[in-house]
Amino acid sequence: MYRTRTCGDLRLADEGLVVTLAGWVQRTRKMGGMTFVDLRDRYGITQLVFNMEQDAALCEQANHLGREFVIQVTGTVRERSSKNANLPTGEIELIVSKLTVLNKALTPPFTIEEDTDGGDDLRMKYRYLDLRRAAVRRNLELRHKMAFEVRRYLDEQSFLEVETPVLVNSTPEGARDFVVPSRMNPGQFYALPQSPQTLKQLLMVSGFDRYFQIVKCFRDEDLRADRQPEFTQIDCEMSFVEQEDILNLFEGLIKHLFKTLRGIEMKEPLRRMTWQDAMKYYGSDKPDLRFGMPFVELMDVMKGHGFSVFDNAAYIGGICAKHAANYTRKQLDQLTEFVKRPQIGAKGMVYARVEADGHVKSSVDKFYTQEVLQQMKAAFDAEPGDLILILSGDDAMKTRKQLCELRLEMGNQLGLRDKDQFACLWVIDFPLFEWSEEDQRFYAMHHPFTSPNPEDIPLLDSDTGAVRANAYDMVINGVEVGGGSIRIHDSQLQDKMFKLLGFTEERAQQQFGFLMNAFKYGAPPHGGLAFGLDRLVSIFAGLDSIRDCIAFPKNNSGRDVMLDAPGELEPGQLEELSLKVELK
Amino acid sequence: MYRTRTCGDLRLADEGLVVTLAGWVQRTRKMGGMTFVDLRDRYGITQLVFNMEQDAALCEQANHLGREFVIQVTGTVRERSSKNANLPTGEIELIVSKLTVLNKALTPPFTIEEDTDGGDDLRMKYRYLDLRRAAVRRNLELRHKMAFEVRRYLDEQSFLEVETPVLVNSTPEGARDFVVPSRMNPGQFYALPQSPQTLKQLLMVSGFDRYFQIVKCFRDEDLRADRQPEFTQIDCEMSFVEQEDILNLFEGLIKHLFKTLRGIEMKEPLRRMTWQDAMKYYGSDKPDLRFGMPFVELMDVMKGHGFSVFDNAAYIGGICAKHAANYTRKQLDQLTEFVKRPQIGAKGMVYARVEADGHVKSSVDKFYTQEVLQQMKAAFDAEPGDLILILSGDDAMKTRKQLCELRLEMGNQLGLRDKDQFACLWVIDFPLFEWSEEDQRFYAMHHPFTSPNPEDIPLLDSDTGAVRANAYDMVINGVEVGGGSIRIHDSQLQDKMFKLLGFTEERAQQQFGFLMNAFKYGAPPHGGLAFGLDRLVSIFAGLDSIRDCIAFPKNNSGRDVMLDAPGELEPGQLEELSLKVELK
Repeated sequence: MYRTRTCGDLRLADEGLVVTLAGWVQRTRKMGGMTFVDLRDRYGITQLVFNMEQDAALCEQANHLGREFVIQVTGTVRERSSKNANLPTGEIELIVSKLTVLNKALTPPFTIEEDTDGGDDLRMKYRYLDLRRAAVRRNLELRHKMAFEVRRYLDEQSFLEVETPVLVNSTPEGARDFVVPSRMNPGQFYALPQSPQTLKQLLMVSGFDRYFQIVKCFRDEDLRADRQPEFTQIDCEMSFVEQEDILNLFEGLIKHLFKTLRGIEMKEPLRRMTWQDAMKYYGSDKPDLRFGMPFVELMDVMKGHGFSVFDNAAYIGGICAKHAANYTRKQLDQLTEFVKRPQIGAKGMVYARVEADGHVKSSVDKFYTQEVLQQMKAAFDAEPGDLILILSGDDAMKTRKQLCELRLEMGNQLGLRDKDQFACLWVIDFPLFEWSEEDQRFYAMHHPFTSPNPEDIPLLDSDTGAVRANAYDMVINGVEVGGGSIRIHDSQLQDKMFKLLGFTEERAQQQFGFLMNAFKYGAPPHGGLAFGLDRLVSIFAGLDSIRDCIAFPKNNSGRDVMLDAPGELEPGQLEELSLKVELK
Repeated sequence: MYRTRTCGDLRLADEGLVVTLAGWVQRTRKMGGMTFVDLRDRYGITQLVFNMEQDAALCEQANHLGREFVIQVTGTVRERSSKNANLPTGEIELIVSKLTVLNKALTPPFTIEEDTDGGDDLRMKYRYLDLRRAAVRRNLELRHKMAFEVRRYLDEQSFLEVETPVLVNSTPEGARDFVVPSRMNPGQFYALPQSPQTLKQLLMVSGFDRYFQIVKCFRDEDLRADRQPEFTQIDCEMSFVEQEDILNLFEGLIKHLFKTLRGIEMKEPLRRMTWQDAMKYYGSDKPDLRFGMPFVELMDVMKGHGFSVFDNAAYIGGICAKHAANYTRKQLDQLTEFVKRPQIGAKGMVYARVEADGHVKSSVDKFYTQEVLQQMKAAFDAEPGDLILILSGDDAMKTRKQLCELRLEMGNQLGLRDKDQFACLWVIDFPLFEWSEEDQRFYAMHHPFTSPNPEDIPLLDSDTGAVRANAYDMVINGVEVGGGSIRIHDSQLQDKMFKLLGFTEERAQQQFGFLMNAFKYGAPPHGGLAFGLDRLVSIFAGLDSIRDCIAFPKNNSGRDVMLDAPGELEPGQLEELSLKVELK
């Protein structure tokens, strides 16, 4: 061993000990006849002291240390005269008696500090140096701990982690697959799994009862911000359960993680909201409930008073921002610009302030009497000092989504989206089907194996669009961190689903026959869910991007700029694979 | 929840309880007016009782249950009159009052029993049914537990599990890569990692200090028995350590696994053997030490007595099988045939029995006096009743390997390779280089980053072939379950290695430049190893093949016969990938 202790663990109680440390030179400072070196390893920073008077040669050696040199030192622990309360080792320093340079280092292209001067591209190219920064390393430490605690919790609940294959078959539905040519089976390809959905359902048919896996999944999609071609899921499935059992068990997991990783005890049951209510009150199936500001619908109050924008609207609704009546005209204009941006697409915004005396002053005063405005105020339960913001449109769902964006923006502006606050929510009762105007047919909102809510089975034929699914999402702070469903285990019900989804018998057999056949040998009732580990870690760490909790992420073109992957193959490799590249 | 208890947990103490169980029908038996059903789930089997007299309709319903039907029953726990001591639930049975068929089942194509009548191909095609068999499920339960205990141990030792990417760059050395065409980067390919070697070394450069990962790795090789195109490694790396530190820490891991998974306490340090000794005494770098029978070299004793086979040999050596002098002529002829098989390639075998009076009777008596034969007996420390088997040849290494096969065969025949006995061994001091007669150059025995033993650095130029590596393998029962090395962190030494391996500076830069450049920014001394999880589980479970501990394995052509993967792509998919299949 090149050390007897680490750079993070020496304390005042160790005074007088002779220890050997090894690590990286964070910085050196010369002061009078002394040289101070901050030595860094994964566990912390320890101050080293070299004294010109005591050992000139050794001190001179220390003066020549560059940033990020790897060194080994032996010395005596001493109490510091000027202590550093910000550092766990800040009460001591090491009086060095021996110094060995284990490796020199080129000057890194950016500073290895909590906040670096390196831009994104440079940091990604030299990711191995970026990972030296405590800020980045902490995220990966949290990721390790989260994976470990997930396993501990699920193991205690009798789940078995089963590894499913990475080289599988291409699935016709869903996103695009990454494929892998098979040399031994020329002209044939494996696919990388988008999720182990089929395999975990097979494990239920196998009687594994409780399965989980922390597993890499792959999607060849055009990357948007915060999407990675490979991502990690906590994938789970259980047999002989109903929706309530799954919600309870995984609510327990989330609470366990908050307790062990963030020290937060959540004693109350997690909040639940139907998809209908989420859309109605927040315009989103993943509402951020760190703050209120639910939508209030105003069709009854505001329609028919001669303001043509509202009079022609299919939806009028607004939010009430507490204590924001002091918003200036300029701020309100900016908000109007915000909702009119093409990504949001509102036509305009109406606002109203509740003044100190309770009087309502709005941007549409000429169309509305104070009496109507007071009715509006009452609808919001608004109080003096509050600001009311209203949107309208001819498509209720679209307008709600615009209002959702406005609500989130107000949450940001008013500081209501604190990264250290966590609002967890189960969204339940998702619709089973989604109607496609374009194709004039129903699609499965999740996948064709999702079970309808048993109460709604009679509606399958009569009111297909109204049928609720036994499907659920876990939302934290407005981010969907997981979701799943109870699966159909009854083959007659499954046949009916396929029919409703417009599958011919042949097509259903071709695409899902394999799983359907397995089900014929005795499938138990089952269901499950999957959490996105990357997203879960990001939220626990308060990160803006999942990239910061991935050791070696890819950029928006799917490239690993550090490894310089993907790259070209040797011609011989292509030939062995019976492949030819044909660039357009 | 469809059940209140599982089929494995009811005991006599539960008598009188009303419980609900769910599971699969293992078998039904009619006896008089009673029907008995064995109900199975992952946790065990519980006997259900239906009584014609008490409830004829219910009993009739039970009589129509088929094998593998999925049912739910409610009933009262009662003490059995005829107990089954082989079953944890064997003291009780359930008097059923309610029966619900949750799902019917087709008759499975093979029996779902400890020993099935299904052949390999059928079992693989219906793997989801094969996995219902307790014998198979237990292997996967062990695999889960092993992975969990590995993580627990390494977490306690401050290791961080870091996920490295699956879509990486193609590496020019080593086995063949599986590749993944990139749609977004036309004509370019990712590779699937053969191991995260480069990335884990980068994590050491990043100061992660202690890394591990249980990770899928991929090799596109022609599959031999017990090779899978995707396999799982326990991959580890540590900084600021020497070989001794790594051996100690991972010896601790192996002992932890034996203790927690098999209840075996290994108190003594694990045995260590140099590669030289392993080759000399066992003709293998992975000797099975469950039994002795080390090689004895006989050049001094047996050469020069007129037996031309031995007189012209470069190596004469043998083994002594205790108490095997009763081998018949037929058995000995079969052993001779065994070593003469082309896979082994010996020219013949000499044998000698030590008779009750100490007299040695050999197959080459006409060339040797009893005096010489007694010297031979002494060399083996042989006793009356022992059997001596001798091989010779003109290439010492080749002959040792033949003798190794003979030794293992004798171990099998004499029942010395008990699957419940475990002999762990570190093989150390591997040669750094391997000489290729064909290419007339040295190759790295492990990889070009393996550090030489510091003592042997002076020999690098003068006696290259004799230089020992700081490399080590863990061998259990003759199977290499893991291995690794201390890596070179000194760039001058690395340059020297490349030169000795015949790399030009350009080629070294092209192939390894990326890692070499990273090392310039301050690489700590580091080393590591990787265990094969599949092999480790197989050994702990006493399996003959790693397939039996993999949920969904592939066959020797790399096919998943259950999923029917790989398969053909749609033409559109190929076009999107800028690829064309060109079959020969």
